[in-house]
Amino acid sequence: MPEPPVAIDPADWVCPLPLRETGRIVLGHGGGGVLTEELIENLFLPAFGTGARPARDSAVLDVPAGRIALTTDSYVVQPLFFPGGNIGDLAVHGTINDLACSGAMPIGLTAGFILEEGLELDVLGAVAQTMGKAAADAGVDIVTGDTKVVGKGGAEQLFINTAGVGVVPAGVEIGPERARPGDHVIVSGNIGEHGVAILSVREGIDFGTVVTTDSAPLHHLVAAMLAAVPDTAAVHTLRDPTRGGLVAAAVEIARSAAVGIELDEARIPVPGTVSSACSFLGLDPLQVANEGKMVAVVDPAHSAAVLDAMRARPEGAGATIIGRVVAEHPGMVVGRTAFGTRRVMERELGEQLPRIC
Amino acid sequence: MPEPPVAIDPADWVCPLPLRETGRIVLGHGGGGVLTEELIENLFLPAFGTGARPARDSAVLDVPAGRIALTTDSYVVQPLFFPGGNIGDLAVHGTINDLACSGAMPIGLTAGFILEEGLELDVLGAVAQTMGKAAADAGVDIVTGDTKVVGKGGAEQLFINTAGVGVVPAGVEIGPERARPGDHVIVSGNIGEHGVAILSVREGIDFGTVVTTDSAPLHHLVAAMLAAVPDTAAVHTLRDPTRGGLVAAAVEIARSAAVGIELDEARIPVPGTVSSACSFLGLDPLQVANEGKMVAVVDPAHSAAVLDAMRARPEGAGATIIGRVVAEHPGMVVGRTAFGTRRVMERELGEQLPRIC
Repeated sequence: MPEPPVAIDPADWVCPLPLRETGRIVLGHGGGGVLTEELIENLFLPAFGTGARPARDSAVLDVPAGRIALTTDSYVVQPLFFPGGNIGDLAVHGTINDLACSGAMPIGLTAGFILEEGLELDVLGAVAQTMGKAAADAGVDIVTGDTKVVGKGGAEQLFINTAGVGVVPAGVEIGPERARPGDHVIVSGNIGEHGVAILSVREGIDFGTVVTTDSAPLHHLVAAMLAAVPDTAAVHTLRDPTRGGLVAAAVEIARSAAVGIELDEARIPVPGTVSSACSFLGLDPLQVANEGKMVAVVDPAHSAAVLDAMRARPEGAGATIIGRVVAEHPGMVVGRTAFGTRRVMERELGEQLPRIC
Repeated sequence: MPEPPVAIDPADWVCPLPLRETGRIVLGHGGGGVLTEELIENLFLPAFGTGARPARDSAVLDVPAGRIALTTDSYVVQPLFFPGGNIGDLAVHGTINDLACSGAMPIGLTAGFILEEGLELDVLGAVAQTMGKAAADAGVDIVTGDTKVVGKGGAEQLFINTAGVGVVPAGVEIGPERARPGDHVIVSGNIGEHGVAILSVREGIDFGTVVTTDSAPLHHLVAAMLAAVPDTAAVHTLRDPTRGGLVAAAVEIARSAAVGIELDEARIPVPGTVSSACSFLGLDPLQVANEGKMVAVVDPAHSAAVLDAMRARPEGAGATIIGRVVAEHPGMVVGRTAFGTRRVMERELGEQLPRIC
């Protein structure tokens, strides 16, 4: 895996002419005329590289016969910039990871921007550059895009939608409904870092140590997991625990497959900084969003091989088995504490942390 | 072609339990927890039908070996409801038409919502139902989606992003750079209706006759055009004249192919209601957005056959040749008036009409 991209700072992005004359987004940048073209040619294309073809309404990609995965996510995180990343790499990683959860290798991303009139071009430039770098590091092109502008006060700075397409290799059958009793539940590493990173800047709280987002692309990790088993069908379910965190991911799997899930709470890797920040803020770290982690449900006969493959990669170095699928209490997730007590893990009604992604 | 879908009115959408208890969108509907699931199960799934699979991070689609087209568009139109349509069918048709401009047959759409806290569920329900009906009428499934909620004042009611994937048939080679001198320029029907429809409600102006949006899906029209020629390569360029209207579409083609385009202004079909509304408002109807029209650049040896095929379908009944591609003045579009005078047609710097789609 390449190093996680360092998010580009607005101060480091040099606004080219003719954009420099205005310095800010105006309504006309979304009008499909000359100003839109200037924005594409001077800001988006240099950021995204040659994969994007601005003069076409859609991008054309080659695919083998078989299955493709298609996904979409909008990003409205506030603030736009946070320790270890910004909305741009988040939007790239999040959509790559949604494809990876189907076992797909991403082949193209789209970038749809909704911009608020008055947005500083330096901010947009830094976000776009970060997106381009994140996509290049992940080996995926941003192939097409769209820009709309709404009046001052009609949006908050900028929103991004990224959709993505990936190719699902033959034989891969991954879905939340495929979890079955006896399967092992694996998590790829530390839990809770993204949410705490966002909250620390949003609330201006100094936890002593800076917690940075875990935002990272996971498609190569998934490919390594699938390569580690004699039959890819041994990997039953993948899920990236974003909004609602580990608990929401586990509950959705349990409900989809009509199975129970038991988690050993002591085995769930929560960094000390995350647990102390969460305890200070009154949050459950198991319900805090992650943007670079994967929950896998795997045939127990092959979980050791999958775990070894994950640990051999930096983004899976902290992988560990945290529980198992059971036939009891279908649709429910039960945590076992270090003291042997059990508790039902329920999803939040809404969210602990709004605007986390 | 099925009849253009009649946009569903918020008064006609019955809000189911448990959503009815609130009546409005709250932040928690975007939190990925229980409220998000309620919104998906009670509002989006009934609207979109069984093609959508909410428990997965991405949809899986079968494709033949070859090429797929991928596109994205965000919709921020104000007001959300206008004569003949609403933001929902606009979002479906617009993305289908972007795929059709590559000659692709759409196989799946995504729906990404950004909702403002406090949005009436009746409004969201009517929009989602309209999207579902537009997609069903067009024979395309909405296969996956995403919902984010921002605080009151953080967006204007709702924004929609639709991305889409289509299959490009073998042999089809359509692109703006393929226009060449001698080609005929065809438009599929009346120009300017969408923009005037939006403006009439936005400005509350009564033009005597109600102008309704032309919003419609054009992929079947394109398929009929391609079927009408012995070699699909005879259809060189397709472009839907949305933002910036006919002039922006023609200029982009002229610039991409480094050719000139000559338009016979008297042949461009502008309805009387559109031209009088535009003259009242000080707008150029050739720069007003359309959402159900196609500009085609076709080998002159086959333009008659293409025209016949277009006119045989309701959405192409008004098709006509409006000009030709020339070797002179590359990158420029020149209009010839009924009096024989010529004028350069320039794109707007920004836009005549913000928030038109």
